[in-house]
Amino acid sequence: MNTPSDKALVPFVSVDNMMRLVHHIGIEAMLVELAGYIEEDFKRWELFDKSPRVASHSDVGVIELMPTSDGEAYGFKYVNGHPKNTSEGLQTVTAFGLLADVYTGYPVLLTEMTLLTALRTAATSAMVAKHLAPKSATTMAMIGNGAQSEFQTLAMKAIVGVETVRLYDVDAAATEKCAANLAGLGVSVVKCSSPEEAIEGAQIITTCTADKKNAVILSDNMVGAGVHINAIGGDCPGKTELAAGILERADVFVEFPEQTRVEGEIQQMAVDFPVTEMWEVILGKKPGRLDDRQITLFDGVGFAIEDFSALRYVRDQVKALGFAEMLDMLADPDDPRDLFGMLQRSKTPA
Amino acid sequence: MNTPSDKALVPFVSVDNMMRLVHHIGIEAMLVELAGYIEEDFKRWELFDKSPRVASHSDVGVIELMPTSDGEAYGFKYVNGHPKNTSEGLQTVTAFGLLADVYTGYPVLLTEMTLLTALRTAATSAMVAKHLAPKSATTMAMIGNGAQSEFQTLAMKAIVGVETVRLYDVDAAATEKCAANLAGLGVSVVKCSSPEEAIEGAQIITTCTADKKNAVILSDNMVGAGVHINAIGGDCPGKTELAAGILERADVFVEFPEQTRVEGEIQQMAVDFPVTEMWEVILGKKPGRLDDRQITLFDGVGFAIEDFSALRYVRDQVKALGFAEMLDMLADPDDPRDLFGMLQRSKTPA
Repeated sequence: MNTPSDKALVPFVSVDNMMRLVHHIGIEAMLVELAGYIEEDFKRWELFDKSPRVASHSDVGVIELMPTSDGEAYGFKYVNGHPKNTSEGLQTVTAFGLLADVYTGYPVLLTEMTLLTALRTAATSAMVAKHLAPKSATTMAMIGNGAQSEFQTLAMKAIVGVETVRLYDVDAAATEKCAANLAGLGVSVVKCSSPEEAIEGAQIITTCTADKKNAVILSDNMVGAGVHINAIGGDCPGKTELAAGILERADVFVEFPEQTRVEGEIQQMAVDFPVTEMWEVILGKKPGRLDDRQITLFDGVGFAIEDFSALRYVRDQVKALGFAEMLDMLADPDDPRDLFGMLQRSKTPA
Repeated sequence: MNTPSDKALVPFVSVDNMMRLVHHIGIEAMLVELAGYIEEDFKRWELFDKSPRVASHSDVGVIELMPTSDGEAYGFKYVNGHPKNTSEGLQTVTAFGLLADVYTGYPVLLTEMTLLTALRTAATSAMVAKHLAPKSATTMAMIGNGAQSEFQTLAMKAIVGVETVRLYDVDAAATEKCAANLAGLGVSVVKCSSPEEAIEGAQIITTCTADKKNAVILSDNMVGAGVHINAIGGDCPGKTELAAGILERADVFVEFPEQTRVEGEIQQMAVDFPVTEMWEVILGKKPGRLDDRQITLFDGVGFAIEDFSALRYVRDQVKALGFAEMLDMLADPDDPRDLFGMLQRSKTPA
């Protein structure tokens, strides 16, 4: 009689179930809904417990825990970053996450987050672009055509109204892969052979390259007036994509300044370089785009609250739709003091 | 064709499988083996990455992440502490843990840790008592007969040679439960009606009560010369069990002073109160018990390295014996850059 009680069971969303969930809801609908959850949490920004990431570094990579709480739910993401993994046929980044009930401390959801992180990153970028990009934006340059590129494109289509994406990658095979994946999904795809060609006529420029060093994917003279730059590839110390001159001409918007100054594009700038927090723009406390000639720049590094929003979203979907298996993860003796008795009784099933 | 590759599958040990594993190995054999792994890691103490716990506090409890790494493996435990849960039919403490490969960042084990924490706590206490208790110790007083008491007793029997346990709890029903659970397990059990009666003739005194306040379970005049005190109930700020006078007369041994000064019995003492770190005793760098009249006191609060040892142990057992199911927790596209392609192809199974 080892049947655990309901309270001891934790819904688990496997990679397979996450893919089924995405297809059931529809990827664009899911990106729109996720962006809604993320925007909701940006509006509640001040009530979150904003701990720094807890990082364990080694010579070849980093393993991080990213916890946060809104006082009712507690969430954390486990995520690794191992650039050398790709050459060994492994993912650079894998992730899973957990949501728990603050009142009981009991976990209520365990889920894969490799796919979910790609979805929340794209949903965040597009939610931010909805606030900052020129209203008429219909063309996006997508520089860097790796694992994020299709998600970014579909989120910008679904949430901002982007109709055309202009692809560029130093590796033409990546561009071919991205173009093939986007075929038939309702976006005009233009394959470009240089960054300069990619940004022609684009009102939104997304940079998401995998360079591990301080690189200049966009040089100062490439960026004209009136664009929104969605810079998401600069996301750890020593990894940037933009010329400092662009940052100086742009108005820079960030998630959590303490983290962005270490991990984002602005690590190139002085510690007091002026930035605006996105949650304040969304709440109307600070201005976003002021005029048609302004360069707005979202220096996105990915913050724990976005993962929290994604965990909340998946919890709600799983409650309504299933797509989870139940894990017997928590010991739950009838008498809480009798853990040993539960163990002993399990020896001889009744 | 959504079959994930081996690398994307993480062995998961459910509560049910943990109980089967314990019965397969035998609880005393498992406690002995666990104590061996823990002692090994105490010997390697200096090479561990010793981060503080990451705690998220609320009015009713705390949720903590306890990470550590030895450079090859990375482990963390999720654990909550909600004293009010018991009155709602829930566990005060639930826990699960994860072990990952530092080189790839990929998780290699997910396991329940509510039972495993009880086992590792008992194994740690007994491993320490092996080093500190009088050589002739055969009788233990067990003050506090809750969820830990049977595990503590069996570990002291298997590792230190304790033959008799003298039980006391303010709640006589807890003592009855503990005595019933220990019946037939090869320990003489004496039920006592006061702490004074319990410690009569005991060379080892284990205190593990659930009082949330600064309590005096052992007063100064109760403790005579030549005993070893295994104080494990004082484990968070504001929760202690021993009179300060005992601490002054005893030689106090701890896991990690930075943590123990906040959470342990010595939170009552000055910040420079002298303590000895157990790893130094085990390595022979510092003396343990010096003579028969000395009072040794282990101020145990539970440290992340003990959980790490337990995770290593379970990983090795699971490799050899099974008792795990495989979780599809990590997205693993054939081409690491083609996460979206993996998602798209999952839509129409071949």
